[in-house]
Amino acid sequence: MTATAELFRRRGYHGTGLKDVTAAAGATTGSLYHFFPGGKADLAAAVITETGAVYQQLFEVIADEHGDPANGVRAMFDGAAVALEDVDFVDICPIGTVAGEVASTDERLRRAADDVFMGWTGAAAARFRAAGLPARPARELATTVVAALQGAILHARCRRDAAPLRTTGALMAELVAARVATATVGRSRRSADRAHR
Amino acid sequence: MTATAELFRRRGYHGTGLKDVTAAAGATTGSLYHFFPGGKADLAAAVITETGAVYQQLFEVIADEHGDPANGVRAMFDGAAVALEDVDFVDICPIGTVAGEVASTDERLRRAADDVFMGWTGAAAARFRAAGLPARPARELATTVVAALQGAILHARCRRDAAPLRTTGALMAELVAARVATATVGRSRRSADRAHR
Repeated sequence: MTATAELFRRRGYHGTGLKDVTAAAGATTGSLYHFFPGGKADLAAAVITETGAVYQQLFEVIADEHGDPANGVRAMFDGAAVALEDVDFVDICPIGTVAGEVASTDERLRRAADDVFMGWTGAAAARFRAAGLPARPARELATTVVAALQGAILHARCRRDAAPLRTTGALMAELVAARVATATVGRSRRSADRAHR
Repeated sequence: MTATAELFRRRGYHGTGLKDVTAAAGATTGSLYHFFPGGKADLAAAVITETGAVYQQLFEVIADEHGDPANGVRAMFDGAAVALEDVDFVDICPIGTVAGEVASTDERLRRAADDVFMGWTGAAAARFRAAGLPARPARELATTVVAALQGAILHARCRRDAAPLRTTGALMAELVAARVATATVGRSRRSADRAHR
């Protein structure tokens, strides 16, 4: 699975053959089909789900470290920038490109990618709710942040420069801070109104 | 080129074979190599550059129609949402996925995609500058909007629901409006200061 994820990050789904996987993993085709009877599609589904969970854990760790959700969002983008630089702009996550390749042709992989994106969105929304946002605005903000992160990674790879990620992260942090501030003011006003009654 | 773009939108770069292209275009392999001696990579470079220009023109038309840049940004996202629904969530642009597939493996195609993203970013930045933003914040805002649009298209395709595009468009419009308002206030303050001297 690690070998497959690395190949996907360099060449995408259709650019990766099962022979590349077995060669990179030092595995036989027989053992590969033993664990993944459906071949490449099975492997891809497992890679999408597993990588999705790892990135969600990473998000939770960063969010815990920062407390303030605007700082947490900025740290996610800045962390992705450093990670991209470290690997010389190979994709840092095998999900985005693969999702784009298969969304219209493989229903199972489309669903696996969608589940991951929904998981990330839910995790970010929970943090925004904890910071005072109502459920719906929290979810909308999370949707936007997750989309912007994916798009910014793509642009940074095409630029071979992490600047688009850092810029987008700074503006997303600004948007999160503004929304949290508005929600907090709204909440204080409502409690003040209740106190006056 | 039209046939190639349509195949890329469904299956990406590596998922599209030259045989698929000639079959879809009703062309012979000989005629394809006559016009594109470098084969699939030549075709892909032409598709990326041509599609990039078409989308940039579309952006200019929408921006002209709306005047106010926040409304223009929202109209771009809403237009993409309708377009995705119309084609049943096949990719509406052949550049994003292909760029993700080739950014680490084909330097020429990476550059072609980067040129397109820079062109879009420049076009959006020019509109934000015209609305009163200084050059650098205008460019940062444009970078963010272009990245968010690409990411939101991917999420909408994986969802098979254009809601992520509409949501992200609404929040991007909010960010643009806030930045334009701040720049306009800053400018009025500076002219007021000058008048007072």
